[in-house]
Order: sequence, then C-alpha cells, then structure tokens
Amino acid sequence: MSTPQQPKAAITPTRTENYAEWYQQVVRASDMAELSGVRGCMILKPNGYGIWELMRDYLDASFKESGHENYYFPLFIPLSYFQKEADHVEGFAKEMAVVTHHRLTSKDGALCPDGELEEPLIVRPTSETVIGTAMAKWIKSYRDLPLLLNQWANVVRWEMRPRILLRTTEFLWQEGHTAHETREEAMQETLQILEVYRVFAEEVLALPVITGTKPPHERFPGAVETFTIESMMQDGRALQGGTSHYLGQNFSKSLDIQFQTREGSLAHVHTTSWGVSTRLLGALVMVHSDDNGMRTPPRVAPWQVVIVPVLRNDGDSESVLAYCEKLRVELGTQTYANGKVRVRVDKRDISGADKKWDWIKKGAPLILEIGPKDVAAEKVCLLRRDQLDAGKRFLERRAFIEGVSAELASIQQNLFDQALTFQKARTHTHIKTREAFDAYFSKDSGNSFSTDQGFVRAKWSGDPASLALLDERGVTIRCIPLDQSGEEGFCVLTGQPATQEVIFARAY
Amino acid sequence: MSTPQQPKAAITPTRTENYAEWYQQVVRASDMAELSGVRGCMILKPNGYGIWELMRDYLDASFKESGHENYYFPLFIPLSYFQKEADHVEGFAKEMAVVTHHRLTSKDGALCPDGELEEPLIVRPTSETVIGTAMAKWIKSYRDLPLLLNQWANVVRWEMRPRILLRTTEFLWQEGHTAHETREEAMQETLQILEVYRVFAEEVLALPVITGTKPPHERFPGAVETFTIESMMQDGRALQGGTSHYLGQNFSKSLDIQFQTREGSLAHVHTTSWGVSTRLLGALVMVHSDDNGMRTPPRVAPWQVVIVPVLRNDGDSESVLAYCEKLRVELGTQTYANGKVRVRVDKRDISGADKKWDWIKKGAPLILEIGPKDVAAEKVCLLRRDQLDAGKRFLERRAFIEGVSAELASIQQNLFDQALTFQKARTHTHIKTREAFDAYFSKDSGNSFSTDQGFVRAKWSGDPASLALLDERGVTIRCIPLDQSGEEGFCVLTGQPATQEVIFARAY
Repeated sequence: MSTPQQPKAAITPTRTENYAEWYQQVVRASDMAELSGVRGCMILKPNGYGIWELMRDYLDASFKESGHENYYFPLFIPLSYFQKEADHVEGFAKEMAVVTHHRLTSKDGALCPDGELEEPLIVRPTSETVIGTAMAKWIKSYRDLPLLLNQWANVVRWEMRPRILLRTTEFLWQEGHTAHETREEAMQETLQILEVYRVFAEEVLALPVITGTKPPHERFPGAVETFTIESMMQDGRALQGGTSHYLGQNFSKSLDIQFQTREGSLAHVHTTSWGVSTRLLGALVMVHSDDNGMRTPPRVAPWQVVIVPVLRNDGDSESVLAYCEKLRVELGTQTYANGKVRVRVDKRDISGADKKWDWIKKGAPLILEIGPKDVAAEKVCLLRRDQLDAGKRFLERRAFIEGVSAELASIQQNLFDQALTFQKARTHTHIKTREAFDAYFSKDSGNSFSTDQGFVRAKWSGDPASLALLDERGVTIRCIPLDQSGEEGFCVLTGQPATQEVIFARAY
Repeated sequence: MSTPQQPKAAITPTRTENYAEWYQQVVRASDMAELSGVRGCMILKPNGYGIWELMRDYLDASFKESGHENYYFPLFIPLSYFQKEADHVEGFAKEMAVVTHHRLTSKDGALCPDGELEEPLIVRPTSETVIGTAMAKWIKSYRDLPLLLNQWANVVRWEMRPRILLRTTEFLWQEGHTAHETREEAMQETLQILEVYRVFAEEVLALPVITGTKPPHERFPGAVETFTIESMMQDGRALQGGTSHYLGQNFSKSLDIQFQTREGSLAHVHTTSWGVSTRLLGALVMVHSDDNGMRTPPRVAPWQVVIVPVLRNDGDSESVLAYCEKLRVELGTQTYANGKVRVRVDKRDISGADKKWDWIKKGAPLILEIGPKDVAAEKVCLLRRDQLDAGKRFLERRAFIEGVSAELASIQQNLFDQALTFQKARTHTHIKTREAFDAYFSKDSGNSFSTDQGFVRAKWSGDPASLALLDERGVTIRCIPLDQSGEEGFCVLTGQPATQEVIFARAY
C-alpha cells in the first residue's frame, strides 16, 4: 500500500455546493454526452453511447430469450392514427414534432418549406398506434398470439425544459409491444418485463429500485395499469427508470385488433407496452458519480480496465508500451459477467497524470499506471475508481490478471451497496401526518444532497382531492410499491382511512 | 438420396414472367419487410431486421477494429446548417422532410399543427453538416486527429417512387465521418472503408461487387471523389451497395473545421464520409432469390438451421419434439464463421409441409424435417435451400452435426459463385461503338431476367456532352472501375479518344 493519495475534487462545483450544476459538469467531464446546437437534442459520445450499447446488448438478449423478436416501424405516424385513441393523443399533443412539408424550394433567395403534406406526420413520441395498426392487419386468430415484439428506436417529445440525458427532445429507447388472448396473459407479460427491468437495473446498472404501480393520474396515456421502477438520486429525488404498461383493450378497440378465439368467436386482444431509454444514462451519473466525476458500474463500462503508460524518458517508452500491450492482451482473455474483460491502452500524446485524471472523471472502474519500475518488477500500479481514497496498490502482474474478474465484481457490488444504503437511509416511514409531511418537504429543495430529503413511504387514500395538496408542495406519488403490508391506517395527506402505502418524493 | 422432388414455383409470378412483381412477392413471402400505411415507409420484420442486425454486428466490429468509435447525433438538422454547403443542400432539397411545428392544438374540433418553429428543422437525410458542426467545436489541434466516428441511425429522403427495401422514405444505415490532417490520410481512410465494404459484400453477403469511382455528375453532393461498390441484380440492372466519399476541404471550409498544425499554423481538416443501408437487404433478395423465394447467405441468416417436426399422430409427438430439441442444443454448440450456429425449432401449430415451404420462402439455408422414423433411426432429413432440385438427403444425426459448419460454408460459397458467374456472363466488353451500344440497350428493359442485359464495360471520354446520350437511353455510368488497363481507345458514346473504362448499366 502506498500512502493514500488525497484526490482533489475534479468536478466544480461539488455535490454539496450545487447538485444540479455538479450533474451538468460530471456529464461534461465524463465525456458521455453534450447538448448540440439543435434545441433540446444531445450528442451521445463514445463514453456514453458505449454504455448504451452494453445496456442494449443485455436487454436484447433478455427479450429474445423470452421469445420477443425485433422489428422496426416507421419514424412517422399520420395524425389520424393518433386521433383514434383519445387519451393517448391528449397525453402527447403538447410535445409533438410535426412534419408538414417534404421539400425545400428557393423563394426570393431563401430556402423555404414546400410540398405541403395532405396530412401532417408526427415524429413518433411512442409507437402504440403505428404498431397497433400493423397488429390489426397481422393478427387473425388465436394461433397468431401471443405476438411479442420489440424495437430499438429514436423517439421525439418536444421538451420545453431539456436536461441532458434525463429529458431531451430526442432520445433512444427500446419499446416492446405485445398482444395476447387474455387479460391474465397480458398482465403476466407486463409483470415479467417489470422483473426483467428490476434485475437489469439492480444487477447490471447497480441501481436499487422500488417496483410498483403508478397511481391513476400518473399512468401512461391510454394504459389501464402502469408499472414502474423508481430509483433515488443523490439529492433524494426520484427518477422513473422504466415502465411496463398493461393497456387492456384500449388500443385493440380503438385500432380494431381482433382475433378469432379458440371457440370461434371474435375478440379484441389485450396489449402491453414497455420501455427504457437513454435517460438511464442520466440515472447512472446521478446515482454513482462523486465529486471526482463518473463511476461506471463494471458491467456497463465501455472500458473496464484502462492502462495508462507513464513515459518519463524516451529510452523507456518502448519497453513500457510493450508491457502495456501484453497486459491488454492477457487481461482481454479474462472473463467477467459472461464477456471478455474490456481493456484499453491510452496512447494519447498527453501526460500520464492527465490521462489518469481523465479516466477518473470518465469513470473507468480500474485504472493501471505503468512506468519503467513496474515493468522491471513485473508489477502493476492499480487505482480502483470506487476507492480513490485508498490510493494506489502495487500488485504482481500475474496475480492482478487472475484476480481482475473478482475485482470488477467487487466494484459492481460496492456501487450497488452504496446506492442501496443511501436509498434506505433516505426512505422515511415514520411520517404519518400532514404536519410531519409538510415539515419534511418544506426544507429547501434547491440542493438536497447534504440533507435527509428523499422518499416518504406512507399511506394514501387515493382521493383525487388530495392531488392538489401534492401539486402545491411540488411532490409526486412515485408508485404504489408491490410489497404492501395491507395494514389499515390513515392517509398522510387527508387523514382519511387508507390501506395502501405509496412512495412520495420530488422527482426528475 | 431420395427421389429429387419437383419444387413447385412458390412465388407467383416467376422471374421470367415479371421480374419487378416477382421481387415484391419474394419480399412479401420471405416476411422480411412490408410497406406500412405511412407513405413510402416500411416495416422491417424479424426475418429482415434479423439480417440487418447481423450486418450491423459484422460492420460494427470492423469499424471498431480500425479505431472508429460510435456516436449518436441529433435526428433534426436546422435549415441554416444545410445552407452552409451549397452543393450539399442543392442535392438534398427536393427530398427533405421538414418539421415546422412542435405541438398539436384543437381548433374547431380538429387537431392542427401549432407552435411554429422559428427555424424549420430538417429530418436528417445524411449528417455531414450536423457532425461537421460538432467537429468544428471538438477539433483544436493535430493531436485531436484523426477523428474517426460512426453512427447507426435512421435517415429520411422523401421518395416520390418508393420501392420496398431498395428505395424507401425512411431507411436505416450507418454513416461514418472522419477528419484528418492531410489529403493523403483522408484518401487512405476512404479507400480502407471501400475495402471493408467490398469484403463485407463479397464474403458476408455473397454479393460480388465492382469497386470504382463515380463520374463527377454522380458524386455525393459536396464530395471531391465518391467510391462505390456496384453489384448486378438478376435482371442485369446495377445496384449501388455502399459508398465512401473523400470530401476534401469542402465541408471543413464551409463549417470552419480548423486545427493547429504540427508547425503551429491553422489549417482546414480533410474529411470523409461513408455508409451502407438497409437497401442491401433488397440487394440480397434481388441477387440470391429464386422462383421459390429468398435464399439467405448463411453468414447473415437469422436462423441457419430450421428444424421442422413432422407430427403425424399424437403418440409420437413427445419423442419427436424431444429429439428436435436435443438436435437444436447440439447444433447450437457448433461454430460457423466465428459464431455459434443459429438453430430454431418451428413449433407452430400448422402442418409440417406448410412449415417447410414457409422456410423455403424465407430462405433458411438448411431445413431439417424430423419425423418418427428419423428419430428411430437417429437420422435427419436435410433440405439445402440452394439445392432444392437435389431433394432431401438422409444423414446420420452425429455426422450432420459435425458437418453442419462445412455445409453452411458450402452454401455461402455456392451463392457467391452463382452470383459471380451470372455477373461475369452478363458483363460485356466487346461493345465498342455507339451502334453496338444502342443495339444492346435498346432491348426491352421491362423484364430482362431472361435476356443478356447487364453491364457494358467500355471506354468513356468524360465529355459532359455525352451525358445527354445516356439520359435518352435510360442508361447510367455506374462507376469507373479501380482496375484499369490504361490502354488508349475510343469513347463508346462519342468516338472521341478515351483511356478510362467505365461500367454502363441500367440501375436501381
């Protein structure tokens, strides 16, 4: 063990100083994404898009294992499709990008939209209507069911207040859409996918989540029931990480998706839809990062081990680089979480210290600094991103290689444990009256990193009249958790008798 | 060997009867894609999208191996970005989908576009301008070069005459964009990618191609030089399968992408761009299919082996299905072309004969029919999609499993060889005068499957005046092949002295 180094806070401001600005700066310093010149739209960069690729690969394999197949549907949806489901169009009308023309023509020296479309096209904010229209054509009989499909796509929801990764006008996502014979089968599918999302969030992203249903006023437009995974950011706010909707027969009736039953009659299918998006990249930043930048869970780190050659004079360069390259190849034969370890040698023409701090900010789980002494001693100098305070460790090369998988697993677990400890510490179950509720949420909501702000788990009557009380306080009901005690009590907002417990929180 | 079966022509009409309609019917019967209710836009279905996923995985690995990284840029491009490069905007102005509003509002009971944008947004037809604008921000010095990036995305080019897979308003593609210090490096990159495309087309897609440069009038809008891979469809028409552009300093000057050189001065970078798209799925259909439907090259077949259980009475079902399942697992341990063999058991509730014909039309390379007798004898009944006339073969189970990789390799080679033989037979080098040229291309171009229509390789002076002659005949110059004899001769169109040989053809 070397003397623990004192890491400077690489991110300005720190979380305590200004959480919202800290978030922006971590995204910038980690080089995951940046806002583009196109209003509300972002550019995903390799350190962010690389995480998304790993998320996609994991989920894609999960979906395929359970019988789902990938399709690709049109980006554009005719306005008339949307209008068929009233709740649905109402829910999205305020944030739709509308294509009205199909060419540009020069007029008085300026290029102007020309070739007006007979019917405007909506850039998809979600694809229930266009996919449902296709299902209506494809599904004839119970033999065609269940129909289990998914697509990886970009969607657009016009954002008035964009926030990078978390809320952007365009984002990437997957959207699953399925059709079933019965309510029971569709509900089973909805819950099965919720469980896929929970396992994905907790085991792959190291994000502890609470699973539950949305209260009626928070449901997806057109859904009968919306299930969600909710996680807690480091300022105590909630973030909805993924949703799985049981749509009942709402879409099948409005789009006329009928099938011949086993008994020979005609019936409407029961449908589901479910999705997760690139906003999960924002959740990763908000949950795992520290005042030195990003900390990427190893399972989704584009580079799990980064090797930094420390070249002090030209005479050593060749042997150091050769040693690094050999290390890269050897580490790349090791296996972690069903894949080969992803290793990169950083050969950029900048100083070793600058490289090291760059990868700290980018969140690489393991950083190796290799200088001539390490080469001579057949050692590696190791920095664990989740234990910067512990400083550098010097390990035998062979021992490090053989232990790299366990080291990565330990980081993955540590990030999850830290997030879970945080979430538990900030989930309050002792608040049972409106006065206590108000006292808790009346604290400054501007920056609650260093406070006790978080989730209040308490009873709620479900009375719609209570929603105004929440609006006034800027608090939302995140979900009705699936695990319920069933004990009777009183609504924390209205004092009415209430049995169900819900999660109250401020939210992104 | 069983008696060769006589396959019925599963596709109506046949290629001879109506090639254009045959193509539509193969796409339909193969269940690769279908046109949607959204004008000019298609739905990619699992048997088509699955091929695209395999194409993507292969190319993505190739690009990453040579140092390219994936990014994702905005779908929308402000009109002002486009206007910076005059040739570029002129080239695309007639086919741009234009977003003019960002919400819908109810007026007199009807939903109408509302929230007009100050500046219209173009749905990207290609991303040079939006990516170049980002590059201008990122690139400061020669240390930031080369910048090698790629994205997988959807793009939109408004098509007045859409044709499924080949020419659709929206399509999926990859677009690479790179920036370099010198012309030489950028040109080297352009050629390196052309070679990646050639190898991909020939070795993975089994599509023989001719590599060359486009004549000036066929260049990408804004390019200094466009390289292309051209392949021949079964009606002798050419299809451009992929392009790689050297953009010179056209975009770097219009978008101001400058860097500090090694000598300390400022200079504009040299850029490239290159892409292939889902239209390659159309090329696969047009080149490899026959009158019984699709024939998918094994390397991109979503299912390389399809097992069809033939269940004649209920008493046998269990043992037949168990045998099929065991076969699936065992075959899945075999390796072909760096991956595990992809095997599917078709358990649908339809007859064995219907399943077999369905997979013939879908193009599965190897189809196994398994009935009780095969189970008892530990055999498999094999149909090779590329040798339907040879009929069924009965093989020992173990021998088939051990030979499956070689069998797939043999199909891959056979499809390539057939396509190459066809392309060579229909490439004519003896046409040297305008009279001979006219006689050749004056033949009916409506359906040229059963004729000698194809490529004419002949000398061309490059005189722009000759282009009108081509227009009149509906013939295009596909490329100036990279391999040139250098011998002097005379232009086939004008009789002027000419050295370079070009490929003349009708084209998609």
